[in-house]
Amino acid sequence: MIYVGIDLGGTNIAAGLVDESGKLVCKKSIPTGAHRSAEEIIKDMASIALDIVNENGYTLQDVKSIGIGCPGSVDKKEGVLIYANNLPFSNTNIRSEIQKYIDKPVFLENDANCAALAEAKSGAAKGTKNSVTVTLGTGVGGGVVINGAVLNGELGHMVIKADGEPCTCGRKGCWEVYASATALVRQTKQAAEKDKSSKLWEYRNKDGKFNGVTAFNAAKAGDKTAQQVVDNYVKYIGIGVANIINIFQPEVIVIGGGISNQGESLLEPVREYIKGKTYNTGTNSWRIEKAILGNDAGIIGAALLKG
Amino acid sequence: MIYVGIDLGGTNIAAGLVDESGKLVCKKSIPTGAHRSAEEIIKDMASIALDIVNENGYTLQDVKSIGIGCPGSVDKKEGVLIYANNLPFSNTNIRSEIQKYIDKPVFLENDANCAALAEAKSGAAKGTKNSVTVTLGTGVGGGVVINGAVLNGELGHMVIKADGEPCTCGRKGCWEVYASATALVRQTKQAAEKDKSSKLWEYRNKDGKFNGVTAFNAAKAGDKTAQQVVDNYVKYIGIGVANIINIFQPEVIVIGGGISNQGESLLEPVREYIKGKTYNTGTNSWRIEKAILGNDAGIIGAALLKG
Repeated sequence: MIYVGIDLGGTNIAAGLVDESGKLVCKKSIPTGAHRSAEEIIKDMASIALDIVNENGYTLQDVKSIGIGCPGSVDKKEGVLIYANNLPFSNTNIRSEIQKYIDKPVFLENDANCAALAEAKSGAAKGTKNSVTVTLGTGVGGGVVINGAVLNGELGHMVIKADGEPCTCGRKGCWEVYASATALVRQTKQAAEKDKSSKLWEYRNKDGKFNGVTAFNAAKAGDKTAQQVVDNYVKYIGIGVANIINIFQPEVIVIGGGISNQGESLLEPVREYIKGKTYNTGTNSWRIEKAILGNDAGIIGAALLKG
Repeated sequence: MIYVGIDLGGTNIAAGLVDESGKLVCKKSIPTGAHRSAEEIIKDMASIALDIVNENGYTLQDVKSIGIGCPGSVDKKEGVLIYANNLPFSNTNIRSEIQKYIDKPVFLENDANCAALAEAKSGAAKGTKNSVTVTLGTGVGGGVVINGAVLNGELGHMVIKADGEPCTCGRKGCWEVYASATALVRQTKQAAEKDKSSKLWEYRNKDGKFNGVTAFNAAKAGDKTAQQVVDNYVKYIGIGVANIINIFQPEVIVIGGGISNQGESLLEPVREYIKGKTYNTGTNSWRIEKAILGNDAGIIGAALLKG
């Protein structure tokens, strides 16, 4: 049997076939066309699912289920996309719409949770029962897998600094405000403006703007201001990850998103920061690993969804 | 069938029988005698279990299982109490020790988790699948029940104020440092010392010391300084509870511990504080309720444990 995974994004609809072992066999993508109606978009989702099956020598009889990862708020039980920023869906029953075209079980899940499920089953946390995948991007996304199943929940909007900087969600001091890629860029810019002699400016001028690697590169070149930016950013990632270790006692914390491309230059200081700061109620072991599935995580996780 | 629940504390060993519906049928307790060896204490735990069965007209044939709630770190799978403050247990296999005397399934769990399970199955969160029970006492304890099962984890040591006040766990700014009963007493004392004309002093003198009700009572009597203490304390409870709502999306958050005796004077302002501050990924409903099982929660939750 094979499993169809669909990653519904604001720009593209990506679909893939995943085998019993959790391996991505093939994938394809089409533009979402988010200016269109939900019905039209869902019809395209069904088409790309049928196409990828047929184009790769399978038939619908080989398909066990269709999983869909969506941005925003999902009612998993009913198969409804409640709300998604930048997409024309509002309490849309994607399951029943897809089933108009394909008579198979259809499962929905938030896309960050799909990515976490993929890393848990086929990626950096493969072989574990309990893991948390944190994505450091525009925001901070998180997905929690306990006993092999995805939990509902939102980690980026955990306040880690009461009365701290305002978050887009309306609260103050959310983890996302300090640990996202967006936050790192802001922190880099602020530090550079205070230290006009910092090498941060060289790297900024080379790239045309401050970005998520400016501080890491300037720090590697020995710039003290840049190193302070990195140390401070590591501290904030560490506070949130230590909270996650205390709250969920996962075996592995997987770090993904663009910033995770720093690899060990980021992960090793985060591990160092956390050491001795966790309060485990059970076993005392945890690992921090880089996500390995990249953009395919969404498709793979969607395909792995079960009822 | 009946279920035996044992709540192992530093002072007393309490045991009870719980029926199929989760109702506590009877209970008794004996001193722990924590100065003795683990073996002697466990022998007493087995004895009190046998006694309460026999004294209430049951036989061992009626007993389905024995559940034990312990303070400290538990290895549930192995039935081992890894470590408990104030008790002479160190990697002690309580299950196999108990089974020397009674040939029944024996389950272990952390006591805060037992209380959460009890509130979830027979208490303030009865009828829900997902709930979190928070105990505001000397520290802040927490137990999370998702899909009817207890998660591992520690909520009191979630940092909510980076670089905040030091916690006994070694980190800075843990929730427990701001939202425990201990914290409220400290905050009350600090506020009173800054305002010698506050009514806080009247209530302090009446009770002989600042305690967990001083600020609430003085605030009810119209004292502004006391009201500020209460408002600030409510804010910190609210920050942590909003985090919990975001992280776990529970249907109910149950508040227990001595401070919860304030009832609606505490819970209503906490609800008000949280309103609009949550970021639910699924349904948008949550309730905050007072724990109703009190000290029996530990016994009931222990009895409800399953393998």
